[in-house]
Parts: sequence; structure tokens; C-alpha cells
Amino acid sequence: MPDAPARLFASDNASGVHPRYLTAIERVNVGHALAYGQDTATRDATALFAELSGRPVEVLFTFGGTGANVLALACLLGRAESIVCTEWAHIAVDETGAPERALGVKLQTFPAPDGKLKVEHIEFAVQALGNVHHAQPGVVSISQPTEMGTLYSLDEVRQLCDVAHKHGLRVHLDGARIGNAVAALGATRNMFSAMTFDAGVDAVSFGGTKNAMLNAEAVLLSGVDQTRRAQYLRKQVGQLPSKMRYTAAQFMEALSDDLWIQTAQDANRSAESLYVALKDVALLQLAAPAVNSLYPTLPEPHRSQLQEWSFFWDWDLSRDQVRWMTSWDTTDDDIQRFVAGVRHVIDR
Amino acid sequence: MPDAPARLFASDNASGVHPRYLTAIERVNVGHALAYGQDTATRDATALFAELSGRPVEVLFTFGGTGANVLALACLLGRAESIVCTEWAHIAVDETGAPERALGVKLQTFPAPDGKLKVEHIEFAVQALGNVHHAQPGVVSISQPTEMGTLYSLDEVRQLCDVAHKHGLRVHLDGARIGNAVAALGATRNMFSAMTFDAGVDAVSFGGTKNAMLNAEAVLLSGVDQTRRAQYLRKQVGQLPSKMRYTAAQFMEALSDDLWIQTAQDANRSAESLYVALKDVALLQLAAPAVNSLYPTLPEPHRSQLQEWSFFWDWDLSRDQVRWMTSWDTTDDDIQRFVAGVRHVIDR
Amino acid sequence: MPDAPARLFASDNASGVHPRYLTAIERVNVGHALAYGQDTATRDATALFAELSGRPVEVLFTFGGTGANVLALACLLGRAESIVCTEWAHIAVDETGAPERALGVKLQTFPAPDGKLKVEHIEFAVQALGNVHHAQPGVVSISQPTEMGTLYSLDEVRQLCDVAHKHGLRVHLDGARIGNAVAALGATRNMFSAMTFDAGVDAVSFGGTKNAMLNAEAVLLSGVDQTRRAQYLRKQVGQLPSKMRYTAAQFMEALSDDLWIQTAQDANRSAESLYVALKDVALLQLAAPAVNSLYPTLPEPHRSQLQEWSFFWDWDLSRDQVRWMTSWDTTDDDIQRFVAGVRHVIDR
Amino acid sequence: MPDAPARLFASDNASGVHPRYLTAIERVNVGHALAYGQDTATRDATALFAELSGRPVEVLFTFGGTGANVLALACLLGRAESIVCTEWAHIAVDETGAPERALGVKLQTFPAPDGKLKVEHIEFAVQALGNVHHAQPGVVSISQPTEMGTLYSLDEVRQLCDVAHKHGLRVHLDGARIGNAVAALGATRNMFSAMTFDAGVDAVSFGGTKNAMLNAEAVLLSGVDQTRRAQYLRKQVGQLPSKMRYTAAQFMEALSDDLWIQTAQDANRSAESLYVALKDVALLQLAAPAVNSLYPTLPEPHRSQLQEWSFFWDWDLSRDQVRWMTSWDTTDDDIQRFVAGVRHVIDR
Repeated sequence: MPDAPARLFASDNASGVHPRYLTAIERVNVGHALAYGQDTATRDATALFAELSGRPVEVLFTFGGTGANVLALACLLGRAESIVCTEWAHIAVDETGAPERALGVKLQTFPAPDGKLKVEHIEFAVQALGNVHHAQPGVVSISQPTEMGTLYSLDEVRQLCDVAHKHGLRVHLDGARIGNAVAALGATRNMFSAMTFDAGVDAVSFGGTKNAMLNAEAVLLSGVDQTRRAQYLRKQVGQLPSKMRYTAAQFMEALSDDLWIQTAQDANRSAESLYVALKDVALLQLAAPAVNSLYPTLPEPHRSQLQEWSFFWDWDLSRDQVRWMTSWDTTDDDIQRFVAGVRHVIDR
Repeated sequence: MPDAPARLFASDNASGVHPRYLTAIERVNVGHALAYGQDTATRDATALFAELSGRPVEVLFTFGGTGANVLALACLLGRAESIVCTEWAHIAVDETGAPERALGVKLQTFPAPDGKLKVEHIEFAVQALGNVHHAQPGVVSISQPTEMGTLYSLDEVRQLCDVAHKHGLRVHLDGARIGNAVAALGATRNMFSAMTFDAGVDAVSFGGTKNAMLNAEAVLLSGVDQTRRAQYLRKQVGQLPSKMRYTAAQFMEALSDDLWIQTAQDANRSAESLYVALKDVALLQLAAPAVNSLYPTLPEPHRSQLQEWSFFWDWDLSRDQVRWMTSWDTTDDDIQRFVAGVRHVIDR
Repeated sequence: MPDAPARLFASDNASGVHPRYLTAIERVNVGHALAYGQDTATRDATALFAELSGRPVEVLFTFGGTGANVLALACLLGRAESIVCTEWAHIAVDETGAPERALGVKLQTFPAPDGKLKVEHIEFAVQALGNVHHAQPGVVSISQPTEMGTLYSLDEVRQLCDVAHKHGLRVHLDGARIGNAVAALGATRNMFSAMTFDAGVDAVSFGGTKNAMLNAEAVLLSGVDQTRRAQYLRKQVGQLPSKMRYTAAQFMEALSDDLWIQTAQDANRSAESLYVALKDVALLQLAAPAVNSLYPTLPEPHRSQLQEWSFFWDWDLSRDQVRWMTSWDTTDDDIQRFVAGVRHVIDR
Repeated sequence: MPDAPARLFASDNASGVHPRYLTAIERVNVGHALAYGQDTATRDATALFAELSGRPVEVLFTFGGTGANVLALACLLGRAESIVCTEWAHIAVDETGAPERALGVKLQTFPAPDGKLKVEHIEFAVQALGNVHHAQPGVVSISQPTEMGTLYSLDEVRQLCDVAHKHGLRVHLDGARIGNAVAALGATRNMFSAMTFDAGVDAVSFGGTKNAMLNAEAVLLSGVDQTRRAQYLRKQVGQLPSKMRYTAAQFMEALSDDLWIQTAQDANRSAESLYVALKDVALLQLAAPAVNSLYPTLPEPHRSQLQEWSFFWDWDLSRDQVRWMTSWDTTDDDIQRFVAGVRHVIDR
């Protein structure tokens, strides 16, 4: 085997923290600052998010992505309500039942081969409205990009929001990789509000951790409404950072010059490069990536040989499918080495 | 008024992060590492905690203190059980109902003027065992140091554990400021296991954030027992850091040479210095601090004047009581300035 | 020992069902009726409750008292809220943690030697409003009569409601023995609305089971407001009777000629008779009953001898206190025999 | 239109109570009996259930079916676990999210056109075992008969239980219409244990209400195991009848001479008669009933005309499908009238 790449293609969760975020943390590490968000960094980062959103928003920094999703949903859910999402939704599959545990809520899931919820799903779900024996659909949750590495167009988001709102439901957008979506759809900061609040989204989980930050996520709520009790709910679900200045400082850095879009763009480009370098290998059945992940077919023994050499995760073994994911710090050298390894194993 | 101190006496939560922890974060920020604890830093920090505990322990790094407590309790609670604690317990008062929300559990609280649970409280609570109309006491939760700044002796912890275990209950120790307790009771690392696992405690919330670390807490469980499902519960309650190496690296630094005890000792000593400098002021009714907090009486208008000058929190206004808290980074200069301010206001 | 009474002085829960309720059940047992409340008996009983309440009310028949309380609280609670009640409240002590389990809610309890919540308790609790670290007081729950057999005056209920409403809280009245309270305070049907909705109460648990009915309870909500989702919440907490006509028929019978007040009055009178017959026995330290229970002091060996002869429950053994409770079906003969037994044991 | 039948074909929930159950209630309505199950009727009915089950069982009488299911699941579920069931399961669709609310649990549902869970579903679900990001499958819940009116064979139940147990899961059987299943599969009392505990089922919801009883359901747990805390959980989920003798008396009547099998058999036979009388009507596309329900195709305007004349429920309007359900009290005259009405409407 050739030399393995220095970085993995396993997950953007495995990547490091961008040096500028560490510098931002150090910069704010001076003297004392009141805890729980009563500091100037939190105030300033909040203002930057309002600017990015083009409207007043309530901003809640959180520790992690599961917590951010649970908090966002808690802020939107009413009594006896359920959540409408795809059967691939991170909240439905990959959070060990956190929404059910923390919120006592039912998730109504729909099949979605491309990871995208459809207007028909909402229209089917709302047939339960008014029936006392069914949990009442209250929140639609979509992921952008989806868990399958696909993207909703602005029109698609808008249509989902319109149908949801027509029936009195609210819309949550799980943006654990929101930077990759913005980068893929134009890489301008206007794209953020265009694909979220402008399109009708009511709450956004804004992910930082998968995009080069250190344990930094945020929930953005459309408008400022104290009756939502969002600040109380954050503490109740265990997502109130006491030393919040260190989270806020990172978001100040990210938003000051669109660093969060640049890092995501770098990750997307690396996925594109990997795709271009290997799309001729028929065995892989590669589709062009929308963001920073590829889902090749890789039968045994190739799969095990490669994973042992440079680890990546299985995706759907019933179809011999695996996932390769690039990160903000993936280098051209990493890609060249990885491509060499793939070809070596397959050609053998 | 004289010049205000550079740092606050509001809370150890308002203090900064020790430079060595930032260095540790930078040191581990190299290349990729698998997420969710499958990295070498997590493995190494876990081993250091086992060594500190003098026994096999299950170690779960978490983001925050409320989350750590909820997770520890989740690991100990059985069906239809309640938690026995004081009416001052952080879990009962200061977590916005997080245990009830996340665990659906009742907290049975007892009056405790000194913040300490007594054997009689457990003996009273267990009278409910076997009565189908009452939640069944299942876990005793104590805080060391307590929320009133007092300490349980080793004997007291042991007696509480013995009575709890005799009736089939398990014991949780909320050690959000465990470093301050260890520092106060001898400042040797052996003191940690002596006041926890050796005394019979089943689960410890080991706090780092109030003790100079960056969003770093841990739950330690006595022994390793997969049937507890602790790892799953951590994810379910939103406390699984994806980039865990950055949390683990800090604990490696803390445990490598007892830095966590030294920083806590510094905080305790500052409280002692503040006490010594002001104990002659009758108005304050100062008691000697056990750890890093003082609870002076400070009537108006002195209170407001001082708080405006250098902010600190009210404690029990029905008794004109406030709280002054020192931190690892409180300097002698901070203390001298604060003392000067207090005297200035009172003598005026 | 003399002959034991035919009926127990243990609890009104041990008493039988009034024959008129069984007749009402049989009367409605004709042909088919749509389930879940879409039947005429439910419609008619609902109208009778509106008449009794002197206003529009939403009426939800339930199976049991714990379920009725949980449902009523579910209808009143908002996000991140807590419940304010006494430490003797049935919801706090005798429901095995059902509110915490079903609603994820914190109960903030206050000492109340006479079983009655005080205005000061609410005023203390609401100090937590606006503090993000504390569950936000949202509902005040009082019991009428209280668990100590005492009664709130109309003025007391009104003052509690006024203070609660002033701070944005809602008020729940646990009327598991509401009939006994109405009987004690005048025994007119107007007394019901006077002590509940007229005084400002927002939700009432209206008990039937302890008052001669068969598994029949109701939740009454002030006004009709679909946004409360009360009907959905009832199903969600497992309290929606499918064959509701049998519950509704009993309440039609109860409300048609105030049978529910008469049976409660009979129970109260029996308690009064028992009191009169034994008040001269100094050992018992009997206080006059407000409703249908007495709390005598009865040291050993008297206590065990009597309990073996005709069972009743201990109350507070630290004070040698037991509870004697009368029911709608307690007869004069039962009382005479019981009095004879008590005297026999004590005089021996 | 001809005369409408005296009873509906809407649901067995709309039927009346069998006179023998009312007589049993009256018979036990003598004097006092300690509440919450400490009475002889409860003891005797429990013994009859153990006899029926052919083994020691823990018997918990409950008010309603949703409550029985929630309780049974509560008794079987461990930490961080999920429930595996079909997407038609009553617990997943028709209980307004009660399991999620009461138990904080995730339901993992599988498509099942015939209402039956398959071994492959369990085998798929258990792939999540050991993955910290997924709720851990802990309980398999099946319904017998299913919500689609189909039946599992004994072999099918046994195979599901074997696979479940092999992976450490437990099995719940929702027997809301268990009588109809027993009647359909031989109508002998041995069939009950054969299709449940003998086949490996761990907990049964034993339905009475849909089978001629008055608010009477039971949870049966295999073996007697105090550590399950089943009695405490029953109170906690609001399903502990205080006057339990009236529920127990009905089950004594039901089990004394297999009345519960006879009434279910009557309902099944009526469905068979209805099928025989209409199977020649091609439009209806009738399949032979397994138990007491038919699912004909009935396009408009026939559907509305018939429903207005004698109400029944829609089933799947995307396929013009409705449900006709017979009950223990459906008479031959009811069937003849209903058949006449159907023919009248269709032939018109």
C-alpha cells in the first residue's frame, strides 16, 4: 500500500479546530466576565448573528448538536404535538432518542431515499390534526444539507415552510453542516437567510463543531419572543455554557469575515476533487457530491483493506455502500494519497 | 472609591481558563482523531482518572455541570425512584428542573441550614419504601463542598453512604467544586478517593469548569458495568462531545501533576486571605470559609454601592446576606483592592 | 371486644358504590353509543357541569384521581414551569411521582402544618421568575379539603388566586373530596362555583370515586379553549374512557338532584357524630372535624388492638397519630360499635 | 332505505356492557373493602389469571387500554432503549404519543401491510445494538389480533419471541382484543397461554373493555418479580383503580366459565355472517375476516349514504376502504338489516 493520508476521510467530526478559533479563545481569556452569557463577547456575537440573519433573532449558544436540536424543538413544540421528519433525520436516528427523552415527543418519520422531506409528507401528516387519538403534528424538521449529503433548493424550503405554516406547524432546520450548504449554494452570506428565515424557517440549529470550531453550536430563533422561554429551556436541557465568552468568541471570529463559509467551501472542494479523481472507477458508482461527502460502493475485500489503511465509516452495507467525508483541513496531498490507496486496492 | 480589583468576586464561573489548559488544547490539535471518545487523549485521561480513583471507574466526559449531574443520576436511578437531597442542592434549585425534565424523577428535599444532608433525612425518606403510593427513594445526592460552602467530613460521607446502601439506595456526589473540597481537606490526591469511592460513593460529578478549565466536566462511575448503559445515556441527555480529545486533553493536564488541586487551593487561600483581612468588621458577621466563598451580611446602602463598584451576587436578602467568591486567578492585589473598597463603603 | 362495625373507618376509598350510580349505569346500558365521549350522556353531563359552574367549562371525564390531577396540571402548565404546592399535597406525596413522570415538571413544596398553602408561599416562589437557573413557577395547586382534613375559606381561595394571577400563574384545585368541602361550607350547589371558578380557580379535579361513585372523576377547566389541547392531553396521559357513557351517566345522576352533596354531607355528619361521641376521651386529643376525617392520638398497645379489630390507617406515628375516616355509607350503628370498641380498648 | 340496525357496526367500543358483568359489580358492592387491590376479589381474580396462564404471573388491573400498554412497556423497558413495532401499532398511531410522553421512549416502526411484524424487522433493528448514537432496541411489541384484523400463528409469535430473546429484547403483546384472537384460534382457554407465555411473550395487555366489560383491562407479567416495581409504575402512570374490587369482580366473572371467550366468539361469528352475506358483492372486495372486522371497499356516494344511515368509520380513504366491526351484542337481525342497507345503496 502507498502511504496513508495524514488526515482521515471518516468525518468532519474527526478534524481539528481551525487555529483562528483557538486564537479567538485566547484573545477573550482575559480577566473575569460574568457567566451564562452576561458578557460582551456573547452580546457582540449575538449582534453578528442578527446581522447575518437580516432580522432580529434570539441566539442561544449551546455545547453540542444534539443539544441544539433538542433546544430548538423545545422552543417550537406545543402541547400534545409531534415532529414530522424523514426516517433519515439525525434527530430520528442518531441521537439515541434524545428528543423523545427530553421532550416526551413523538417523531413521525417518512421514507426519503434522497434524504429530503416532501410537501406530500406534511400533507399526509396533517390529516391527523383534530383527531384526539393522534399526536398533533406541530413541527416540521428538515436538515440542510440532509443526512444523505443532498440539498434542498430555496424553493423547496419555501414550499415546505408554506405548507407547514398553512396548517399551523412551525419549521426547524437542522444546520449541523449549514456552512457546507451555504458554500454549495453560492458561498455568499446572504444565502444563509435566504435558505432559512427568508424562506420561512422558524428555528435553525447552526452548527460550528463539524466546521472547524470547538464545541460551538447555536440555536437561532426567528424574532425575539420572551414567551418562548428559550433561555430557560436551554438551561433545562443542559445546554447553557457557564463560560459562554469562549463559545461566543469563536462565533465572532467565524462571522467577522465569513470564515465559516470559507472552511466549509474548502471541505466541499476537497470532496469535489476526490470525486473528479475517482469518478472513472466504475466499481465505486460515484455520484457528484453536493457538499462534503461521497457515498461509493465498495465491496469486500476492498472495503476492509482500505478501512484498515485509512479509516472511514460504513454507510449502507446492504448495498456495499460506505461514506467518505472531507473536512476543512483536508489537503490536496491527503486526497492524492487516498486516491492512490483506493486505486491500489481496487486494481490489485 | 478606590480602584476596583481587576477580577470579580462574583463567581469562579466568571474566572478565566488557566493557560496550561489552553496549551493542552493546542497540543492535541494536530491532525484527525476519531470523534466521540475513540481517541488516545480520551483513553489516556480515562486511565489517569482510574489511577486517581484507585480502582476501575467508568469515565464520561461531558460539556457542563447540569448535564453531568443529570447523567450521573440517570446512571444510578431505577424504576419509580426518587432522589433524596437537601433543599439547597444545585440539582433541586439551580438547574431549572433539569432532572425532572430529563429523567421524569421526583426530588425529595430536606431542610439543611448548613447545606448538609443528614443520616436522619435518609432514614426518614426510606420509610416510603414498599408503599406503592410513594416514589421509592433510590438515589441520595450530596454536594461536596455544599452549596453553602461547607464540607462533609470523610466520616459523614461514609455514614451517609452506609445508611443509603443498607436500604438499597445509591449515592451521587455533586463535585462541581470537588477540587476545592480536596484542597481544603489536605490537598493530596488521595483525598479524592477517600471522600468519594472509598467512602462508598457510587457516582461523582467531577467539575472542571469552575476550576480553571474550559467547558470540561466528567462523570465517574464506580466500577465498569456495561449494563448501566452510561455511554448511551450520555448521548441521550445531550452530553456527548464529538471532539472529545479537547476535553480529555485538559483533564490529562489537570491530573498529570495535580494542577486541579493547586488551582483550587489558590482559590481557597484567597478566600482565607479575604476573611482574615475583614473578619474584624463586625457588620459583616464573617465566618471563616471552608473553601472559596464567604457569606457576609451587607445591608443597604453598602451593598448596592459595592456591587456597582465590583459586582458580586446576592445570597439571602431576607438576611442581607451576599456571597463573595474567589477563584484560581484571584490575586493578592485583587484582594487588597476589594478589602479597601469594602472598608471605604462601610466606614463612610 | 364488642362486635366490630360492619363498615371500616379506614378510608372513603374502601366504601361501596351508591345504588343510584349502579342504576344509572344500567339505565345507560342500552344498545350502542359511539365511544370516547361522542354520546348523549357525555353531552348531557357536560351541560350539567356548566350549569353547576355557572359558566362555560370544558369537562373531561377521567378514570382516576391521579390521572385527573396530572391532566389538569398538563392543561395549565407552560414551558419550563414548576408547580407550587404544600409538602402534604397529594400530587407531591401520594402519587408515586406521577406529575414528574408524566409532565417532566418540578414541584416546589412548602411546609404547611395545617395543610394549607399561604399567600406568602406564592410570594416567595415567584421571586424565581426571571431567573434562568430556576424552574419558573407556573401553577399553584391547592387541595380542598386539604390532605389534613382542613378547609380553605372562600376568602383564602380568592386571595391565593389573586396573588397567583397577579404574577401570571394559574390555579389548580384538587377536589378529590370536593363534595365534602361543599357539604361543610353550606351544602348548597352554589358553594361549588363560589369556592372554585368564582374565586379565580382555573382548573378543578372533581372527585367522584371517594364520594360513592364508580371510577368516576372529572377535570373542569374554566372556559372553553381549544388551544389548550385538553382533549388530546387526556388521551396522552391515559385517561380517556372509551365507554364514556357509563362515567357520564353517574355524573348525570350525581348532579341531577345534588346527590353528590348529600352523600358527602352524610360522611361529614358521621365524622361529627364520632367526634361528639369521643371528644371527652382526653387520650385521643380529638379536634372537631372540618369534613369526614379525625386524627386522634392513639398510643400502643391501644392502636394495634383497635386496628386488628377494625382496620384504619396510621397517620403520623412520630406523634402516635392515626386517621379515622367516615364515608357516605357509614351508619349510626357503625359509629356506635366503633365508639364502643375504642372505649373498651382504652378503658381496659 | 330499509330500517337501520339497532346496533352499530362502528366499533366494539360502541357496544354495551354484558349484563353478567353488571351483576358481578353489584354482587361485590357489599360493605367495605380496602382500596388499591387489598381486597379478596382482586386476590381471587389474580389467582384465576395465574390458572389461565398456567404459571405464576403478576396481574395488574388497569382502567384503560392505553394505560395498560404504557404500564406493560414501562415494566419491560431498560435504560436508553427503544420499542420495535409496526407502523400500524396502536401504541405508535392511536395513543396520541402516550408511550413517548410517559416513558420518554423512541418507537422504531416498520412497514407492515398485513399489520404483522416480521422476524426481519427485529433483525434489522438489533443492528443498532452497541452503537452509542442509536436508542437500543429493548422491547418488541406486537398486537394480537393486529390492528389490520389479522392474526399471528403460534409459530409466528414463537419465532418473534425467539429472535427477540436471542438478542436480549423482551416481548409485549397488545391483546386489546385478545378474546377475539383466542376465539378465532380454537376458542379454548389453553390457546391463551399457547399464544402468549408459552410462546415466550413477557407481558400481555389483556383487554376487557372491547369485549363487553366496563373499563376493565389487565396487564399480565410473566412470573412474579418485585424488582420490576410494576405496582409502583402502575400508580405512577395513573392506572391504579382505588376501588379495585369492581374491576376484579368482572374478571372473576369472565374467567369463571370463559365468558370472555364466548362473547368474543359471538363477535367473530357475526363478522363471518356479514362476510358470507355480502361476499358476492364485487364492489366491496371483501376478504374473509380473521376476527371481528371487515375492511370493504366502498366508494362514494355509497359510503356517505350508508354512514349517514348507520355510522361506521373510514379506514383508508386513499383506497376507498372502510371498516365494519361486529361486537359481542351484534344480533342476526342487526346483520340482516345492515346487509339490506348495503345492498339497497349499492344496487340503487
